[in-house]
Amino acid sequence: MSDFRTEKDTMGQVQVPADAYWGAQTQRSIENFPIAQDINKMPKEIIRAFAILKKAAALTNRDAGVLDADKAALIGQVADEILAGKLADQFPLVVWQTGSGTQSNMNMNEVIAYRGHVLHGGHLSDEKKFLAPNDDVNKSQSSNDTFPTAMHIAAYKILTETTIPGVEKLRDTLKKKSEEFKHVVKIGRTHFMDATPLTLGQEFSGYVSQLDHGLRAIKNTLPHLAELALGGTAVGTGINTPAGYSENVARHIADLTGLPFVTAENKFEALAAHDAIVESHGALKQVAVSLMKIANDIRMLSSGPRAGIGEIHIPDNEPGSSIMPGKVNPTQCEAMTMVSAQVMGNDVAITVGGSLGHFELNVFKPVMIYNFLHSARLIGDVCVAFNDKCAVGIEPILPNIKKHVDSSLMLVTALNPHIGYYKAAEIAQTAHKNHSTLKETAVQLGYVTPEQFDEWLKPEDMVGDVK
Amino acid sequence: MSDFRTEKDTMGQVQVPADAYWGAQTQRSIENFPIAQDINKMPKEIIRAFAILKKAAALTNRDAGVLDADKAALIGQVADEILAGKLADQFPLVVWQTGSGTQSNMNMNEVIAYRGHVLHGGHLSDEKKFLAPNDDVNKSQSSNDTFPTAMHIAAYKILTETTIPGVEKLRDTLKKKSEEFKHVVKIGRTHFMDATPLTLGQEFSGYVSQLDHGLRAIKNTLPHLAELALGGTAVGTGINTPAGYSENVARHIADLTGLPFVTAENKFEALAAHDAIVESHGALKQVAVSLMKIANDIRMLSSGPRAGIGEIHIPDNEPGSSIMPGKVNPTQCEAMTMVSAQVMGNDVAITVGGSLGHFELNVFKPVMIYNFLHSARLIGDVCVAFNDKCAVGIEPILPNIKKHVDSSLMLVTALNPHIGYYKAAEIAQTAHKNHSTLKETAVQLGYVTPEQFDEWLKPEDMVGDVK
Amino acid sequence: MSDFRTEKDTMGQVQVPADAYWGAQTQRSIENFPIAQDINKMPKEIIRAFAILKKAAALTNRDAGVLDADKAALIGQVADEILAGKLADQFPLVVWQTGSGTQSNMNMNEVIAYRGHVLHGGHLSDEKKFLAPNDDVNKSQSSNDTFPTAMHIAAYKILTETTIPGVEKLRDTLKKKSEEFKHVVKIGRTHFMDATPLTLGQEFSGYVSQLDHGLRAIKNTLPHLAELALGGTAVGTGINTPAGYSENVARHIADLTGLPFVTAENKFEALAAHDAIVESHGALKQVAVSLMKIANDIRMLSSGPRAGIGEIHIPDNEPGSSIMPGKVNPTQCEAMTMVSAQVMGNDVAITVGGSLGHFELNVFKPVMIYNFLHSARLIGDVCVAFNDKCAVGIEPILPNIKKHVDSSLMLVTALNPHIGYYKAAEIAQTAHKNHSTLKETAVQLGYVTPEQFDEWLKPEDMVGDVK
Amino acid sequence: MSDFRTEKDTMGQVQVPADAYWGAQTQRSIENFPIAQDINKMPKEIIRAFAILKKAAALTNRDAGVLDADKAALIGQVADEILAGKLADQFPLVVWQTGSGTQSNMNMNEVIAYRGHVLHGGHLSDEKKFLAPNDDVNKSQSSNDTFPTAMHIAAYKILTETTIPGVEKLRDTLKKKSEEFKHVVKIGRTHFMDATPLTLGQEFSGYVSQLDHGLRAIKNTLPHLAELALGGTAVGTGINTPAGYSENVARHIADLTGLPFVTAENKFEALAAHDAIVESHGALKQVAVSLMKIANDIRMLSSGPRAGIGEIHIPDNEPGSSIMPGKVNPTQCEAMTMVSAQVMGNDVAITVGGSLGHFELNVFKPVMIYNFLHSARLIGDVCVAFNDKCAVGIEPILPNIKKHVDSSLMLVTALNPHIGYYKAAEIAQTAHKNHSTLKETAVQLGYVTPEQFDEWLKPEDMVGDVK
Repeated sequence: MSDFRTEKDTMGQVQVPADAYWGAQTQRSIENFPIAQDINKMPKEIIRAFAILKKAAALTNRDAGVLDADKAALIGQVADEILAGKLADQFPLVVWQTGSGTQSNMNMNEVIAYRGHVLHGGHLSDEKKFLAPNDDVNKSQSSNDTFPTAMHIAAYKILTETTIPGVEKLRDTLKKKSEEFKHVVKIGRTHFMDATPLTLGQEFSGYVSQLDHGLRAIKNTLPHLAELALGGTAVGTGINTPAGYSENVARHIADLTGLPFVTAENKFEALAAHDAIVESHGALKQVAVSLMKIANDIRMLSSGPRAGIGEIHIPDNEPGSSIMPGKVNPTQCEAMTMVSAQVMGNDVAITVGGSLGHFELNVFKPVMIYNFLHSARLIGDVCVAFNDKCAVGIEPILPNIKKHVDSSLMLVTALNPHIGYYKAAEIAQTAHKNHSTLKETAVQLGYVTPEQFDEWLKPEDMVGDVK
Repeated sequence: MSDFRTEKDTMGQVQVPADAYWGAQTQRSIENFPIAQDINKMPKEIIRAFAILKKAAALTNRDAGVLDADKAALIGQVADEILAGKLADQFPLVVWQTGSGTQSNMNMNEVIAYRGHVLHGGHLSDEKKFLAPNDDVNKSQSSNDTFPTAMHIAAYKILTETTIPGVEKLRDTLKKKSEEFKHVVKIGRTHFMDATPLTLGQEFSGYVSQLDHGLRAIKNTLPHLAELALGGTAVGTGINTPAGYSENVARHIADLTGLPFVTAENKFEALAAHDAIVESHGALKQVAVSLMKIANDIRMLSSGPRAGIGEIHIPDNEPGSSIMPGKVNPTQCEAMTMVSAQVMGNDVAITVGGSLGHFELNVFKPVMIYNFLHSARLIGDVCVAFNDKCAVGIEPILPNIKKHVDSSLMLVTALNPHIGYYKAAEIAQTAHKNHSTLKETAVQLGYVTPEQFDEWLKPEDMVGDVK
Repeated sequence: MSDFRTEKDTMGQVQVPADAYWGAQTQRSIENFPIAQDINKMPKEIIRAFAILKKAAALTNRDAGVLDADKAALIGQVADEILAGKLADQFPLVVWQTGSGTQSNMNMNEVIAYRGHVLHGGHLSDEKKFLAPNDDVNKSQSSNDTFPTAMHIAAYKILTETTIPGVEKLRDTLKKKSEEFKHVVKIGRTHFMDATPLTLGQEFSGYVSQLDHGLRAIKNTLPHLAELALGGTAVGTGINTPAGYSENVARHIADLTGLPFVTAENKFEALAAHDAIVESHGALKQVAVSLMKIANDIRMLSSGPRAGIGEIHIPDNEPGSSIMPGKVNPTQCEAMTMVSAQVMGNDVAITVGGSLGHFELNVFKPVMIYNFLHSARLIGDVCVAFNDKCAVGIEPILPNIKKHVDSSLMLVTALNPHIGYYKAAEIAQTAHKNHSTLKETAVQLGYVTPEQFDEWLKPEDMVGDVK
Repeated sequence: MSDFRTEKDTMGQVQVPADAYWGAQTQRSIENFPIAQDINKMPKEIIRAFAILKKAAALTNRDAGVLDADKAALIGQVADEILAGKLADQFPLVVWQTGSGTQSNMNMNEVIAYRGHVLHGGHLSDEKKFLAPNDDVNKSQSSNDTFPTAMHIAAYKILTETTIPGVEKLRDTLKKKSEEFKHVVKIGRTHFMDATPLTLGQEFSGYVSQLDHGLRAIKNTLPHLAELALGGTAVGTGINTPAGYSENVARHIADLTGLPFVTAENKFEALAAHDAIVESHGALKQVAVSLMKIANDIRMLSSGPRAGIGEIHIPDNEPGSSIMPGKVNPTQCEAMTMVSAQVMGNDVAITVGGSLGHFELNVFKPVMIYNFLHSARLIGDVCVAFNDKCAVGIEPILPNIKKHVDSSLMLVTALNPHIGYYKAAEIAQTAHKNHSTLKETAVQLGYVTPEQFDEWLKPEDMVGDVK
């Protein structure tokens, strides 16, 4: 008994592993694209999105009277198995295949058809099967509209299920820290140089504001992602679809996912361009930019313990060095900044791919969604890890904070309105040169009395309105 | 009589050209930053935005009672001169200076103070001047809040005055073309290969839809750009500002520009991060991605005249070759795709700069706004040029379009619902191999009658609903 | 009996799966970095490189008399097991960890120590083990010098084992095609527009030349990659290494790999910067640029079959469409252009990471090497797939090629030396307007006789010297 | 008398400013490309490179007997005027024109022809002129081979005249500082955290090594840039060139420039791809990466003056703040890091443009060379400014350096070989917790005697071999 069975497609026969649910076209892809097969499988989020849309298409076809109810039910049953996490090993294809994702669409069509045939009582070795990959499972569809639909479903879901919740979790913790630290007066730093004071809470409020804007930016892109290509079929005209198909299939997908998907107003754009992916990843890149800033600040503020800034303490999570005993490092910040660099790179891959659609189809679909899902996942995950293992445990190191404020020369700024910028500069410059304090210098230069100095120059009055 | 006069700042004396309105700090910057001085001046849009904000700050200071009315009026008068295009040669500084833009802020402070002094009847050589750069013109301000305010004013203005109108102009022409061409049935192309037909109007409607989404994306970013940092002064706390200053100065700027500027809710973000610029440029990059697609399509559709696709004609604008006589090239498409490449690059410069703010200040301000304004200008300008010199003159070449549709093998797709995907494939493959027509092959294979073929396979019925 | 055992490190106790060879620090990393754990494991090439260097370090330590010979042998034995592909499931850590890769270094130290202990007859549950992760396996090392050493070993190996051979294979096929096609005269195209003729072999020779330059560029970067950080330990000073260690360990690595590794002249750079990775990936990006050009050309030249350019035929590998029967697409070109887009993105991730080292250490090591190995693998693999499934089967479609040459108006260029650019232009413009041939137009305008035309304008004479 | 004169080209008549040396095609370009005309003129380096190549082509044509000697001399005379900086206002075209740069080539052809005509005693208003733009000045040339030749000449010259000398100047200063500081023992920092010590000289030696590698990388790319396209004419075949032209014209260019230019072995690549520009800019990007690292380190090491790291002093160049009196900032570092961000962005623009050549021509030539020259200039200039205004004046702040070393806990690493990693860790952790010194803790824990501690733990012995 053989380990292989013979399958065929319009080009002829192909040997397929005997127990695989896939057919000829999947097998051809395995053989034609031996490219990073161990590391770059088509993302599971796309497989799941395909299962959703195949079920929705089957229901829509059934309602339109172009697919038998029992076939539609069988398609839905296999789709549900896939959504339940079964059959995961039946999707062996990689990102680096045809740029339309046709082979992954056919992989799904074949697996649903053949698994459905088995559920229906048939055998994989039957030449004639109850469900046909193209004529039944793919009915009223083309790879050209299914793959971009799967892209939008997968993108929308990961943003709302992983990315946004992750960023919000971190944002909420930073907000809480901002409240906790709102009266901790510390020295400001601009250009890495000592500046006028602010509170640690104010500093953290800037991070919160960045993430709030980032979340808003992501959400601004969701309506474009909610537009689905399905119904455009081969080139956007909707050839071989029944009446009302586009709207109905979008409605079914919205029902199945609980998300506000609609049919794209213009199917020609929806196949030929993926500007929605470009747009939405632009927002992810913006968040990456914010996270780079936040993580850098936090690791520099916690630097030391003895030869750094040392104004905050972050949790000690693990030994930091294989050679330096007792060393602890800001490792969560490092994971976050590495993710940020990755997302910046992914943005360029998406930009290049997005710009190179031609005529009726963009054929950079797999690489675009691969990078998108990667970024969305990384941002969501790293925000949670950073939150749980770092942000929640941040505490001020008050002695260092106080020492830095007290010694700062830039407190002199508070004297500007009283003695003018030039005399204030002279005080700061003289104190710096003489390694003296502002007060003794200011009095010595005769620009203020000690009493005036104490009244005018209070760090806690220099931080504005701290509600 | 000397060609120089002596100016001084808190660091000492500097020789300045005798007739320059600028002072010591501008001169120091010229000398300290001899970097691409002939090609990278601080953009004029930033100079103008500074003039607006200096006037607004003077008015606000006057209203708050911290600046004399005659000084405020004088500041406004010089600002108006600058806005009228005068004094342009008084702003010699380059992008590659301090990352806070302090020197450009001081350049503006010095020019306003010294020009104001002259308008007030003084001389540039007077040691004591009526207006002081720091204590008067810069009152209630810091470079740290003025420069980002100028960034947002300049960015908002160029988007609404140049970029958006330019893109809209092109969008409107493409929309008109899409209507004109709505019944021109042509062959579709996916993967560069012949596919099922659509109309030329449908093809163009995809471009319109891309630009509509792009315009929406740009507009989504305007609220973030409308937030102004002014009032945050040195580190975001608003030190040395009178009560109500932030809101009032934003209101004055809104009045002066007629644009919906508001004070930023969080000044710490507004100084330390420029995610609004990152966000908004993300939308510009999206438009660049769309323009690359559109320009590529149009040049390929017009390729030939005898060995290309040749389905549309674009205007002949200039001789295309210095060696090949009579050659004409799609040069507007080339300018557009080059702009697209530039914007993609600018996006990375902005991303990197935007991510590297530290503590209370981002010091990549000049490079960020330089790239932003460059992209915004290029997109606006190239859309207008492309519109006027190319898009308005696009015409279909009907004989070629018809020839391509008539010969296409992919029309066979219309037979799927009648005879199934497999038999249809056999027809197409056979016709391809035999260099025969679909009809003769289909009949020969016995899958359809000539009458059925003519009834089922009509290109004009394959393009869906063309309203 | 428990499924876990207790391990400890300098921070305390950790529960570890009872049968895992790893210890406390690996386990902490799993728990602290739940970031994309299913998709972003530390690349296997890094694991293997670490095995090589641990063995080399053990040998060097033994030779220097600071490690017992039996311990050294045991370390080598486990390293060999790892290199033989065993123990692969003992390296569960991800890219998104500490930016120094310390945890992966400790993972390796722990696995070697504990597996060695078992090989030595001990049990995983023994509290005291024969080999200590830090004091034995990591002796004379730090993560800070081992990880960059592993980066260079892995990078050098993948370039020479996968990338360069892959590119060379494709280059050789294209060279062969260039020879085969050297007399096939075809129309040239510039700006997508018809130009003067060249041979198909000449066109392909340009691709060969691009790849030759790309290979040279990659090879130019190998000497920088050959420099190893090992011996720098914590900060580059080589603290806690025996005399001669750096040179000796590099020699051992060179012996074990058969590659020309040397100790880096400057260890401070070798830890704090990874410009060698930036440099070498720059060459990979250059190759990606070349591949984008080549793949685009080939898919456009093969476009059609009836409404495209159709000058070459590429192999039919699989059905191209789930809806359009009989359609075949240039899928290998698409995989190649997607890889190109990915490599361009990876380059930015590496650039950003590479630029952000601080003081004595760059802590973007894992993200840098992850992207590097990804690109190197993708380029190597896609060149082989493209070669085997596309390039080897490319054939000219002579009738189309001849038709395009014969009808071209740009052959008129050959008349320039005889009648001047202006008259030649008039001929081409008139022929274009009248849809006539060059010859009839030229004669009609009276600029040449029919005999002159035939003598002066021979396409086969316009392609220069075709050896 | 009119302000305009009538010029004509093969498309008809054009009105040109009466005193302009340019003709119809230049004027058409001005009118057709109103895109950023005030800020994006074709770089002057390209204009100069064109003047060189036009002179070289004239000499070669003369030698080959296809151009009269007096015409050749006249062309050379005008070229020399241009190289002497005259006629600069005769090149009004912008980057955003045709992607082959044809219009800039014609601008040069027209200016040389018409200026030559005037030098020859004619008038601009003469209908017939002594020199013809196409048939004389452009003889044996095409835009398609002249523009890429100008790109390589301009690129090679700016690298050797501006970029490399600038980087070398900074490298030499850093080398000198590295020598000066070679015995200044300071604390190392990894992950921003205190680590084992090194000398300040060692730290600077890492920067020197980075720049040395960067210079080597740039120089590795020069041979590819030395290859000239000239002689390929329209599509690479060399149509309409006399025998030996390619080699001879390259030799003339080499003579005129004193640089080792050669004719490109493969002209098809030389027109259709600009991988040499991609390759060489990759090296510039590598240097940008190095400069980001160096500038970041230097500004952080000089941070303070009272609440930062403060281990080095950099020159005070200008007042740093418009509001904070006496503030001084690391502004040269900021210019340098901004340049670095710009170069990273430029690299992507070049990558995208470089990848999108099609068939016989890449039509992203102007945008590619614009970005290349920008980066090359910026790097050269910023290195000189940074050198002169910052690097030469760097001095250690010894008291702070000593304080940081003395207090560091990571000196404990020196005890590893004596007491093992675990006990050493316990010492460091206990000292950290108790805010005590290493010595008192180590003795208290009983792991060493005071004498052993003093013998084993000497910072100056921990920095390795400082020659």
